Amino acid sequence: MNWLNELNWGAIATDGLLLIGKLVLAFLAFYVARAIGRKVISQSFVKMKKQRNISAGRSHTLEKLAVNVLSYVLIFILVTFIAEMFGFSPSALIAGAGVIGLAVGFGAQGLVSDVVTGFFLLLEKQVDVGDYVTVAGLDGIVEEVGLRTTQIRGFDGTLYFIPNRNITDVHNHSRGNMRALVDVSIPFEDNMDETIKVIQDACADLGDVKELIKEGPDVVGVEDLSSSLVTIRVIAKTENMHQWTVERKIRQVIKQAMDEYKQSQEDDTANEKDE
Amino acid sequence: MNWLNELNWGAIATDGLLLIGKLVLAFLAFYVARAIGRKVISQSFVKMKKQRNISAGRSHTLEKLAVNVLSYVLIFILVTFIAEMFGFSPSALIAGAGVIGLAVGFGAQGLVSDVVTGFFLLLEKQVDVGDYVTVAGLDGIVEEVGLRTTQIRGFDGTLYFIPNRNITDVHNHSRGNMRALVDVSIPFEDNMDETIKVIQDACADLGDVKELIKEGPDVVGVEDLSSSLVTIRVIAKTENMHQWTVERKIRQVIKQAMDEYKQSQEDDTANEKDE
Amino acid sequence: MNWLNELNWGAIATDGLLLIGKLVLAFLAFYVARAIGRKVISQSFVKMKKQRNISAGRSHTLEKLAVNVLSYVLIFILVTFIAEMFGFSPSALIAGAGVIGLAVGFGAQGLVSDVVTGFFLLLEKQVDVGDYVTVAGLDGIVEEVGLRTTQIRGFDGTLYFIPNRNITDVHNHSRGNMRALVDVSIPFEDNMDETIKVIQDACADLGDVKELIKEGPDVVGVEDLSSSLVTIRVIAKTENMHQWTVERKIRQVIKQAMDEYKQSQEDDTANEKDE
Amino acid sequence: MNWLNELNWGAIATDGLLLIGKLVLAFLAFYVARAIGRKVISQSFVKMKKQRNISAGRSHTLEKLAVNVLSYVLIFILVTFIAEMFGFSPSALIAGAGVIGLAVGFGAQGLVSDVVTGFFLLLEKQVDVGDYVTVAGLDGIVEEVGLRTTQIRGFDGTLYFIPNRNITDVHNHSRGNMRALVDVSIPFEDNMDETIKVIQDACADLGDVKELIKEGPDVVGVEDLSSSLVTIRVIAKTENMHQWTVERKIRQVIKQAMDEYKQSQEDDTANEKDE
Amino acid sequence: MNWLNELNWGAIATDGLLLIGKLVLAFLAFYVARAIGRKVISQSFVKMKKQRNISAGRSHTLEKLAVNVLSYVLIFILVTFIAEMFGFSPSALIAGAGVIGLAVGFGAQGLVSDVVTGFFLLLEKQVDVGDYVTVAGLDGIVEEVGLRTTQIRGFDGTLYFIPNRNITDVHNHSRGNMRALVDVSIPFEDNMDETIKVIQDACADLGDVKELIKEGPDVVGVEDLSSSLVTIRVIAKTENMHQWTVERKIRQVIKQAMDEYKQSQEDDTANEKDE
Amino acid sequence: MNWLNELNWGAIATDGLLLIGKLVLAFLAFYVARAIGRKVISQSFVKMKKQRNISAGRSHTLEKLAVNVLSYVLIFILVTFIAEMFGFSPSALIAGAGVIGLAVGFGAQGLVSDVVTGFFLLLEKQVDVGDYVTVAGLDGIVEEVGLRTTQIRGFDGTLYFIPNRNITDVHNHSRGNMRALVDVSIPFEDNMDETIKVIQDACADLGDVKELIKEGPDVVGVEDLSSSLVTIRVIAKTENMHQWTVERKIRQVIKQAMDEYKQSQEDDTANEKDE
Amino acid sequence: MNWLNELNWGAIATDGLLLIGKLVLAFLAFYVARAIGRKVISQSFVKMKKQRNISAGRSHTLEKLAVNVLSYVLIFILVTFIAEMFGFSPSALIAGAGVIGLAVGFGAQGLVSDVVTGFFLLLEKQVDVGDYVTVAGLDGIVEEVGLRTTQIRGFDGTLYFIPNRNITDVHNHSRGNMRALVDVSIPFEDNMDETIKVIQDACADLGDVKELIKEGPDVVGVEDLSSSLVTIRVIAKTENMHQWTVERKIRQVIKQAMDEYKQSQEDDTANEKDE
Repeated sequence: MNWLNELNWGAIATDGLLLIGKLVLAFLAFYVARAIGRKVISQSFVKMKKQRNISAGRSHTLEKLAVNVLSYVLIFILVTFIAEMFGFSPSALIAGAGVIGLAVGFGAQGLVSDVVTGFFLLLEKQVDVGDYVTVAGLDGIVEEVGLRTTQIRGFDGTLYFIPNRNITDVHNHSRGNMRALVDVSIPFEDNMDETIKVIQDACADLGDVKELIKEGPDVVGVEDLSSSLVTIRVIAKTENMHQWTVERKIRQVIKQAMDEYKQSQEDDTANEKDE
Repeated sequence: MNWLNELNWGAIATDGLLLIGKLVLAFLAFYVARAIGRKVISQSFVKMKKQRNISAGRSHTLEKLAVNVLSYVLIFILVTFIAEMFGFSPSALIAGAGVIGLAVGFGAQGLVSDVVTGFFLLLEKQVDVGDYVTVAGLDGIVEEVGLRTTQIRGFDGTLYFIPNRNITDVHNHSRGNMRALVDVSIPFEDNMDETIKVIQDACADLGDVKELIKEGPDVVGVEDLSSSLVTIRVIAKTENMHQWTVERKIRQVIKQAMDEYKQSQEDDTANEKDE
Repeated sequence: MNWLNELNWGAIATDGLLLIGKLVLAFLAFYVARAIGRKVISQSFVKMKKQRNISAGRSHTLEKLAVNVLSYVLIFILVTFIAEMFGFSPSALIAGAGVIGLAVGFGAQGLVSDVVTGFFLLLEKQVDVGDYVTVAGLDGIVEEVGLRTTQIRGFDGTLYFIPNRNITDVHNHSRGNMRALVDVSIPFEDNMDETIKVIQDACADLGDVKELIKEGPDVVGVEDLSSSLVTIRVIAKTENMHQWTVERKIRQVIKQAMDEYKQSQEDDTANEKDE
Repeated sequence: MNWLNELNWGAIATDGLLLIGKLVLAFLAFYVARAIGRKVISQSFVKMKKQRNISAGRSHTLEKLAVNVLSYVLIFILVTFIAEMFGFSPSALIAGAGVIGLAVGFGAQGLVSDVVTGFFLLLEKQVDVGDYVTVAGLDGIVEEVGLRTTQIRGFDGTLYFIPNRNITDVHNHSRGNMRALVDVSIPFEDNMDETIKVIQDACADLGDVKELIKEGPDVVGVEDLSSSLVTIRVIAKTENMHQWTVERKIRQVIKQAMDEYKQSQEDDTANEKDE
Repeated sequence: MNWLNELNWGAIATDGLLLIGKLVLAFLAFYVARAIGRKVISQSFVKMKKQRNISAGRSHTLEKLAVNVLSYVLIFILVTFIAEMFGFSPSALIAGAGVIGLAVGFGAQGLVSDVVTGFFLLLEKQVDVGDYVTVAGLDGIVEEVGLRTTQIRGFDGTLYFIPNRNITDVHNHSRGNMRALVDVSIPFEDNMDETIKVIQDACADLGDVKELIKEGPDVVGVEDLSSSLVTIRVIAKTENMHQWTVERKIRQVIKQAMDEYKQSQEDDTANEKDE
Repeated sequence: MNWLNELNWGAIATDGLLLIGKLVLAFLAFYVARAIGRKVISQSFVKMKKQRNISAGRSHTLEKLAVNVLSYVLIFILVTFIAEMFGFSPSALIAGAGVIGLAVGFGAQGLVSDVVTGFFLLLEKQVDVGDYVTVAGLDGIVEEVGLRTTQIRGFDGTLYFIPNRNITDVHNHSRGNMRALVDVSIPFEDNMDETIKVIQDACADLGDVKELIKEGPDVVGVEDLSSSLVTIRVIAKTENMHQWTVERKIRQVIKQAMDEYKQSQEDDTANEKDE
Repeated sequence: MNWLNELNWGAIATDGLLLIGKLVLAFLAFYVARAIGRKVISQSFVKMKKQRNISAGRSHTLEKLAVNVLSYVLIFILVTFIAEMFGFSPSALIAGAGVIGLAVGFGAQGLVSDVVTGFFLLLEKQVDVGDYVTVAGLDGIVEEVGLRTTQIRGFDGTLYFIPNRNITDVHNHSRGNMRALVDVSIPFEDNMDETIKVIQDACADLGDVKELIKEGPDVVGVEDLSSSLVTIRVIAKTENMHQWTVERKIRQVIKQAMDEYKQSQEDDTANEKDE
């Protein structure tokens, strides 16, 4: 036990003190960083909530996610620092993180991408539950917007689960008035000017559907002129989600008007012949 | 053996003690980390099971997978630390892991991606065995959902093995009532209003199929108006998986009603002529 | 406490002084770099504003973004330096940044790509609010250009949210006069030269639409010659956004002129027969 | 030779002993790791063989592959450790491995991907030799399933070599009964109800083909109703690989029955006229 | 202040001198490298200008870009060296650069790709302002070629902004004479040899369009022989950008000639009948 | 020259000896590794040649390639080790290799991929010179299989150069008997059963083409039943590359038989009328 | 200046000598490596020139490129070594190279890919100036093959600039005789055997086009047998680039022969009637 005495107890003590100092410093830095990070995140969300008018529940979800990510990263850095202080090279830890990172990078990038896109879908309010939208080539009413998937109920009753990363261009059909558009094709031989007049008159009388209409319906003119057909276009502005009802009604009244017009013409011809 | 005595036995002993201390610390850290990790995973699954109402068997599979991944990573880190303590630089180990990692990253990323997607398919219950779904452009009844592949039985009897990574948008046709939709085209010359009435009347009497229907069937109006055809749409809400039966029945009764209507018209004309 | 005295207080003091010197140097370098960076950015934007004639609000947004990015990078470097001075190896920090970086790289690359493209969309004024554009295969009036998404209102009232990264080729239909183009097909048997004359004459009289036209309309010749049809093309240059009105008007007058021409021909034939 | 004596022989001896110790340790670790690895692999395959009912030859191939991969990685790690002990930095070795790794990663990733997919094709028995499958858009009978390529014999006699990585969705047509489906279109004017009866009757008498049928054939109803055609669907469940024979037979008997029916109708009309 | 004297002032001075020497060396190397780099770039552009006949303004733009890139890289290297001399490990700087590099790599690679492609578009003169080109599937007259985007004015007046990276295959329609091609289809029953003669004769007389033609027009023969139509092809070489005028004129004269030929034939038949 | 004597000549000599020892060891390891590598490669090829029955020339090409790759990698490792022994850090060499590696990885990955695929094309004999194959969507006779490109002569005489990486699915039409398939459509009104008999009889007499046929030809039944056509399928197994000759002959005899049958029917009808 | 004497001049001198020695060694290694590299490249090209029969100019271009690449890499390694000798860590240099490398990797990979593909296009003579080829979906005559782009003149006069990376499958239509193929469709009612004889006879007399034909033309048989048409195929082998002339001539003579045949038939029928 001779050599024990020869130990440089001074150096050991200094090292010990230094170590403790460093530890304290590291934990301090960790708590300070976390506190600052949380503050920054919290304030950003307060600002966002005001500016973007997001519901409390929604912003709470997003804030929790942001704080979680921050905490995981800070804890990882802290653990690495402490391992290093005790003389463990952090390579092992980093290597472990690297292997997981690679797996994440290649295998689960879709997952990260889902969450990032989901985050912005929630934040920017591109879709709301109940909206009629077209995303990823699928139409339907939004049933749920989550961090990983969005659920949409199709017209035929099918429930679509769409990973958020597949949602790029969002077509939201529930933001403002819609346009109803009806194209009517008549034979080239028919009297175009009179037919236009008949259609215009028919559009004036749409019954109770009238209330759903904001503008029109108006005949905008000859949309196409092939060698056998003349296509006439009718346009109206309608209340949201009622464009199909209006289009169907317009088609019906036009068909009726054209039938009547043809009948009256035939009667005329018959009369002429009779004379 | 002179030099033997000159060895700094004190330093060696100190080093030895330090080494043992470090070893103990490393194993301790390992067990603590594993215990905490398991606890966290276990509790997450308990919470999940409650919230998402997942069957015990399914959550057990997922939990085992998560614990396995955790253990492999922790063991790898531990081995690297120990190698380092004995003076082996961990570079070799990391390099070996890196080469495997690269191979995984490039060659087997599909595999990792399959497992990650499979994990969420199981967790989020997007598909259940027995559901009628459309995934990756293939229709059919789900026969099995695994971590790597999902098996679907097509309508013609073919068994599809679909790697989970190919399952992005899930169309689940077994979640709620479905809609039956029948389009009937009539010549432009026909009397539209009467035909609509005939179709509406026909739809009122669907026999025993009536029980499968939740709403309708209703004629919604003129869906399309070409220069030669008028298309009339009929819509009904039906019980899940019975939409085709309902559609076929609706088509049949409409065909019968239109035949009768035509017959009665011809009779009228004949009568008129006779007169 | 004997060993305390043995501490090399001189070395410690020197180290302390050195540390403080380094710290001061690092902060100095940080502030100098940030100041220079800001100056450079600010001046670039002043130059840009002059050269490209960008609105103050827009350039302010871009400048703030550039300064933010610079600050984050400089702060990260500073923190790493300081950690290093206190004997913490920066590996941990870098590893933490690396893990985030990987996640960003793979999962959120779309986000970075959005911001980069958005930056240039704002800077290069490819689209302005109110322009009629085609981007990512979608037509419409631009409602908002943001750093992450651009909002476009489609013709039928749908609001499109398009991530900026999806905006590659921009078709801007609101930059200069547009061309109206009408193709008229006549049966191969008809008299081509006379028909061209009839069309040309008809185009001379477009009523109040005339004011929207900058050049023409002119018959440019026989565009297609199939075995049954001869296609004649008419072209005009119009004011922006009025090309459709002009095209519809041209189609209408051509149809009317051709009807009259046919009528006159039939009358001639009838007269000839009568004679 | 004065300086020779001055060499610290003690230190050299200690170093030598240490080196030998380390060498022994490294080899020991290598053999232990390999033994454990082999054991684990071997036991996994025993378990797999039981659970999945894989043939001995097949599982032997897979086990050999797994053991080979393990051995190569362990040898690489061992060599790197030994190089390091003799004072060679392992960087060179790692760099060499890295260059090969990169080449593998980019150029030969297809190869790795082939083997990984081949491994699972063999393990999960998605395809067996003799199965009639559709993979990578190609139909045919499986002739061989290898680690890198799968060989399929097409209907016209062509032999397809398909790299396993191209095999994603597997359509296996040899797992269970198949469905025979025949659509018959009749003119809209025909009597639908009688035709359905004729078809249903015809399907009752299929001769010796009857033995190949498990269920049906049944007329399920009106599948499509266009303005000129009524489409009637017949469905049957058949033994595997006999669906085409059944479909052909059904078509033949329907054609015959409809000919007879038409003949009888014409006879009736003729009779009526004669009367 | 006892310890102050104990400082090894000699070593400090030596270190200081060494540091200053290194600093001087680094700056020297920086200036030499930059000067050489600039010289090399400058001379390359002088050579290029001669060989490729590029306008001074254009080559100036490219040279400035090249010098800028060089300067940024050299400054980055210099700063890293200096930081290292003062005892700061360069890891932090490199890490900062790496994070930016990753962001560039993944998010802004399109930007780098744009500039690289733009550089070569300018250098190789694939497109000039005023050329009629097809790039990225869009036709039009080039209005501006920039480092990031190319602007093309479409035929209908739309202004296309195309990121240079999207410009791969360039179809330049303004480099040399163009070919006018007209296909004429006649009924299978017509006399092919005579029709060819009629067409060939018609092509001899194109009026003032003749001046735009370099070769032909020539009937090259029977291009297609279906069961109902014989297609005859006429080809001419024209001046650039006048191919459409020529094609329209050829179509017109062929139509006229064929009308005359048919008339003469009918007259012959009538005469024959009359006789 | 005082300091010269102060040099620790002993240490230098020891270092020198150590260096020489290390050098010898490195070279030894290099030669041993190369010899073992060559042996392994050589034996693998001997085994392969036996198992796969590859021509000597072909296996020689592949062996040379494998030995070259091994040599380059070993030389690179050796050079790096030696540079390190002389006190040069290998970072520079590795960096150089890294830059080349990156360029290879991104720019020339196609090249590496070509060679890897070419290696397996040669090894696995998927295509032989003279085979009629479909690869990368191109049909033709294989003219040459190289390490980088495969040359195929198309039916119209075009020579295709296909980079091996584009060769994924190989359709080899020269491995075994082929199937000739002829579909004959007859009007719905025709007598199906008699027509089938006529076709079956016609197929019995194919003249000298008979020798090219292995099985059949047989009428398999009614392949399709539309409202206006009945399609009958005839199948035969033929010698390789003669399927088209057989199909043409079958079509010819069927046409002749059906003409005769129609003639006889008309004669019958005529006779009946005459009677 | 006391401390100056205390400097260990001996160590400094030794270090200096060592440094100079290392420098000399590095330069030596550089020159040796470059000389060997050049020799290897030069000899490879001599061998290539002999084996592949490449023109001197072309091989000179390629050799210069190869030597340049070698030189740049060696200079980069040399500079890094020298920097390291003077105590600068090479990290900065490598980092700089890495940033450039990343930019190259992501932004300019197309450029590297172009040059690599261009290198092999030149080396393997897949295309020569003047060849008629199809590359990247574009047809035309090759005007220039460069390291970065290939220029092709399309049939209509357009000049295509194709980046070499887009050139994968090369269809070279100028390597050997071509095949002319003409399909003639006749009504199902026509006499097939006689028509085939008429076509075969017509093909015997092709006038001066005969000289362009190497084999045939031969009627190969009935290519297709629909319910209304019989398609007969004629094939001939022609001189390169004359296949279209031959096809047009064949079509013309067949049309003439079929007209004559029909005429003769009608005459026969007329005669028969007259009798």
